Amino acid sequence: MAASGIITLLTDFGADSPYVAEMKGAILSVFRRATIIDLTHSVAPQNIRHGAYLLDRTYRSFPYGAVHVGVVDPGVGSQRKIIAAEIEGQMFVLPDNGLLSVVAASRKTSQLREVANPRLWRSNVSATFHGRDVMGPVAAYLAAGGDFAEVGPTLGAMTRLDFPTVSHSDGTIRGEVLYADSLGNLVTNLTKGDLADHAISSISIDERDVGSLASTYSERSIGSSIALWGSSGQLEISIVGGNAATWMGGGFAGRITIEVKS
Amino acid sequence: MAASGIITLLTDFGADSPYVAEMKGAILSVFRRATIIDLTHSVAPQNIRHGAYLLDRTYRSFPYGAVHVGVVDPGVGSQRKIIAAEIEGQMFVLPDNGLLSVVAASRKTSQLREVANPRLWRSNVSATFHGRDVMGPVAAYLAAGGDFAEVGPTLGAMTRLDFPTVSHSDGTIRGEVLYADSLGNLVTNLTKGDLADHAISSISIDERDVGSLASTYSERSIGSSIALWGSSGQLEISIVGGNAATWMGGGFAGRITIEVKS
Amino acid sequence: MAASGIITLLTDFGADSPYVAEMKGAILSVFRRATIIDLTHSVAPQNIRHGAYLLDRTYRSFPYGAVHVGVVDPGVGSQRKIIAAEIEGQMFVLPDNGLLSVVAASRKTSQLREVANPRLWRSNVSATFHGRDVMGPVAAYLAAGGDFAEVGPTLGAMTRLDFPTVSHSDGTIRGEVLYADSLGNLVTNLTKGDLADHAISSISIDERDVGSLASTYSERSIGSSIALWGSSGQLEISIVGGNAATWMGGGFAGRITIEVKS
Repeated sequence: MAASGIITLLTDFGADSPYVAEMKGAILSVFRRATIIDLTHSVAPQNIRHGAYLLDRTYRSFPYGAVHVGVVDPGVGSQRKIIAAEIEGQMFVLPDNGLLSVVAASRKTSQLREVANPRLWRSNVSATFHGRDVMGPVAAYLAAGGDFAEVGPTLGAMTRLDFPTVSHSDGTIRGEVLYADSLGNLVTNLTKGDLADHAISSISIDERDVGSLASTYSERSIGSSIALWGSSGQLEISIVGGNAATWMGGGFAGRITIEVKS
Repeated sequence: MAASGIITLLTDFGADSPYVAEMKGAILSVFRRATIIDLTHSVAPQNIRHGAYLLDRTYRSFPYGAVHVGVVDPGVGSQRKIIAAEIEGQMFVLPDNGLLSVVAASRKTSQLREVANPRLWRSNVSATFHGRDVMGPVAAYLAAGGDFAEVGPTLGAMTRLDFPTVSHSDGTIRGEVLYADSLGNLVTNLTKGDLADHAISSISIDERDVGSLASTYSERSIGSSIALWGSSGQLEISIVGGNAATWMGGGFAGRITIEVKS
Repeated sequence: MAASGIITLLTDFGADSPYVAEMKGAILSVFRRATIIDLTHSVAPQNIRHGAYLLDRTYRSFPYGAVHVGVVDPGVGSQRKIIAAEIEGQMFVLPDNGLLSVVAASRKTSQLREVANPRLWRSNVSATFHGRDVMGPVAAYLAAGGDFAEVGPTLGAMTRLDFPTVSHSDGTIRGEVLYADSLGNLVTNLTKGDLADHAISSISIDERDVGSLASTYSERSIGSSIALWGSSGQLEISIVGGNAATWMGGGFAGRITIEVKS
């Protein structure tokens, strides 16, 4: 596989964190010509599920050969493994805690290895910052065209988390809100595939009616709730010109359900 | 015109938004060697005027051949056009909703075209994210040295918004606060040209006296209000070591006026 | 010294500030192929001490030949100097107000010059934005391989600020909290060198016991306080899964002291 020289970073360090800068310095120290792109650093702290969805959503826009580093790592310093995976022509370096669950759920993992070769790491590895000392340098090695097999031994399986699934019964399709994006739009786990072959009569979220499916924000007036396909192909609930997460009381827990009656 | 390879992004997606990352992935998928710079993603949501001023302020620092993408796009999915413009050696790709109004107000637009050639776009264009699916890829094409005429047909005129103007009468010059920057400084529409040939006696904002024009923050004590030329060449009202937007009650609406008596 | 082409930026402009974009435009106008990395823009406004620590912490990850620009500059427009320094193979361009104090405290400054050659600056220098008009362009010149001696005349000494020091007496080692990082971890001035040759019996912060030194977060339960080595090699006080700055009442002033009994 030809490396693209692109490395992306997804963490829960917070926007503009100096820790992110340290990771970039470590990467450039290994691979001076890397193109480093921030996916986001606003994953809810230590929320592996949130990170898993954001990683899945954002990495897809990147070209073949990109290397994605994910650092949502509550188990840093414990015995959790770090893994490197190749999936449909892109590479991932991240803790083995489920952070790759959504990406890997519907795609073929062609290579899976444990990150276990200290010659690719920084010379002094801290107990608390493997993003800078291990994952960043390994990603830089891969992005520069390094041999994937050098990373460490093959692994049989990665850790996977269960995620909410969609149910169909008696003309009702139930899903869940997965997370609120930074604009307060509620992103659900309902995809176009789930709703294919169904004529939608109404959509509601926690028993609040949001009408039928719209095509664009401009179809509704300011302040109205609206359900439409987000750019990632998932059903989203929004308030036109407003903030749906606030409208729902700030919560976007899994208990929120959406019914689509056909 | 020689493309510089530089692409800048200005949006209202919020700092550190994963949507911005998706735009960058789409750009790098077209033009691997692009240099992508964030102008800002903190435009007030759907506030075209705010975006228009920030775009004008920031793009000027960039070199000849840069391509600027602006995504403040409340009409996405409606019939609003997307335009590409060349102005004094720099290029712009953005919705035709007035976002280019300030840049174009005092400069010659040498080319103006409608973005209408789907061969330059992503293969699947969503209804809600033209920044990623249309504008980013078109900007990448242009930044890589693509032919401007390939973007689409020429347009006779772009949409322009009216912006507050400066009035002179009886020794009083009236302007307005345009926006508060991220440090709370109130940026006005008064430029050095407006005040040339006038001996300034006093400056006030909503009848609060801020004294005469200062040259540097260090001329006043901590907590004092101060009027001085901002780095963009516009008169700014600040609080030394403090936040002028908070001092004005958080508002920075157009009704706030500044009088400069000569 | 071979320049690396890397320029980093540390400011108090706030995350996602358009002022940062202007600095980047000015840099790219001088040196089109610069690799520009944000260290952080979240230095507490005009807090030179905070900036000095963050600069010291983050710059170290970068390779030989990197140029670091620091803009925490309450004296902009006054008579304060701007300096350029070379320290252990990396370069710094920043106001002479103590911002380089921590970096320079324990390392040899091999070159120190006043930034005083206007031919390297933007043609119009504003009174309020030397980061864009002076420091950025000078850094670009250096990162492109420009001659350090062209920057301006040599200086005998830079401005240095005093920082809290560590004291040892009667089996007690006292240090201080320097700042809270963006996750609320309290970063102290105690390093591994300070505690070498001591068997640690207990650690407390403002008389609150935090137990003995831990190796990883996973050793304690959620909500517990914990003391461990941070990734920068300084002792940090954290709350597992929580925010230690909040736990301490939001303050992280110098009066907070840590005792390590041996």
